[in-house]
Amino acid sequence: MTQQSTLILVGAGPGDPDLITVKGIKALKEADIVLYDALIDPELLYYCKKACIKQYVGKRAGQHSLTQKEICNLIIKLSNKYKIIVRLKGGDSFVFGRATEEIEAARSVGMEVKVVQGISSALAVPASAFIPLTSRGISQSFWVATGTTKDGKLSKDIYLAAQSTATIVLLMAMNHLPEIMSVFLNYNRGNTPVAIIQEGCTGRQKMICADVNNICRLAEEHQMSNPSVVIIGDVVLSQQELSGIVSLKQAI
Amino acid sequence: MTQQSTLILVGAGPGDPDLITVKGIKALKEADIVLYDALIDPELLYYCKKACIKQYVGKRAGQHSLTQKEICNLIIKLSNKYKIIVRLKGGDSFVFGRATEEIEAARSVGMEVKVVQGISSALAVPASAFIPLTSRGISQSFWVATGTTKDGKLSKDIYLAAQSTATIVLLMAMNHLPEIMSVFLNYNRGNTPVAIIQEGCTGRQKMICADVNNICRLAEEHQMSNPSVVIIGDVVLSQQELSGIVSLKQAI
Repeated sequence: MTQQSTLILVGAGPGDPDLITVKGIKALKEADIVLYDALIDPELLYYCKKACIKQYVGKRAGQHSLTQKEICNLIIKLSNKYKIIVRLKGGDSFVFGRATEEIEAARSVGMEVKVVQGISSALAVPASAFIPLTSRGISQSFWVATGTTKDGKLSKDIYLAAQSTATIVLLMAMNHLPEIMSVFLNYNRGNTPVAIIQEGCTGRQKMICADVNNICRLAEEHQMSNPSVVIIGDVVLSQQELSGIVSLKQAI
Repeated sequence: MTQQSTLILVGAGPGDPDLITVKGIKALKEADIVLYDALIDPELLYYCKKACIKQYVGKRAGQHSLTQKEICNLIIKLSNKYKIIVRLKGGDSFVFGRATEEIEAARSVGMEVKVVQGISSALAVPASAFIPLTSRGISQSFWVATGTTKDGKLSKDIYLAAQSTATIVLLMAMNHLPEIMSVFLNYNRGNTPVAIIQEGCTGRQKMICADVNNICRLAEEHQMSNPSVVIIGDVVLSQQELSGIVSLKQAI
């Protein structure tokens, strides 16, 4: 390295480009190169200075994109050429964002690493539908998980979650919805409210609400798919009617 | 009401004033009156227009402040006088933020309600210490809870959490730390890493790391107190040495 190079991991938030932080924008303005993900709103790249290089690195199913290993290697390679490298990721880098791997790669060649927190869709998407994750007297905690573990199996934590009073928030869970709901049914949770919000915090936001008994049928009927956030718990009731409604909403 | 009045709930983020969103700033610029909480950085109020009224409503232990009921009544009263009322809260309004009560109050008199998501300290404070909440192969989920339920008792969810592989994040838990750690000990989790971060994302940030066996002694030695975030799980190890270190860090 000819100069000290810095990697800044910036969380872009959940879709709406106005949900990035002031600190995130300051990082974009400083950047010599930005490596950005598939779910990033292109409007965010307008904050970059003119000379800044904007490089798409993926990763979205079916589009050309780099593997995680290739992204890590790219960061190492770029550390020789650029002073400020911004890694712009949807949501928050530290929530299912594989941040640790990129930090380790950067540090292995002596780069400085900074983190700018982003709003996670796990929290922002329920809020956009006025669903609080905790609510006094209804839920004192919330549990955020993906549908499956690294090896594609249902996590055993789902069985514990189904026994808890926590609000459960699941990301990327649509392919395992029937399995997950059957776990809740086994713990006698058939009447627990469920909301599914697809492409939350964007103009394409689409939501269905039902209970554990009925959500799978409704999800199929309305062809709900990833990226979606699934919220399981009585907090869903606090703002929604549970009559199987589907609402197509514009982002706030 | 002589005019349509709007309540905008704005999450200010976890302490660092640059961790508010662009959308949050836009709301502050529009506000005719701002009702702000104790943990808000005063710098944020500079975004308000000159004519905007800034009213402190609390709530921090030991300082004069309004009760939740009084805040709800105030919102109702103000709806007659002001077009845009911004309620500025630390963190995110929908995570232990009592948002639902204020939304219900506003809607009861026909006000429109909007939500601007904020970065929750439950996520941002671990990130500021480079602790990811999920990490491939280490933790696939995270569980955010307060130390106690409404009636001051330890939630039974803590017993489920202690059996899970989730990263556990606890807010306002310092008064019940020994009880909580004894639950983890009962499930043979004595060696699980724990970090406590006091006043995270501020210039006064203070952190200790240890394991379940030793964290209480260390917390007492270093007089750790609320507001603190407690993180329990192997992800703590991924960025920290567990030698009982105490680091006094400046906010990034």
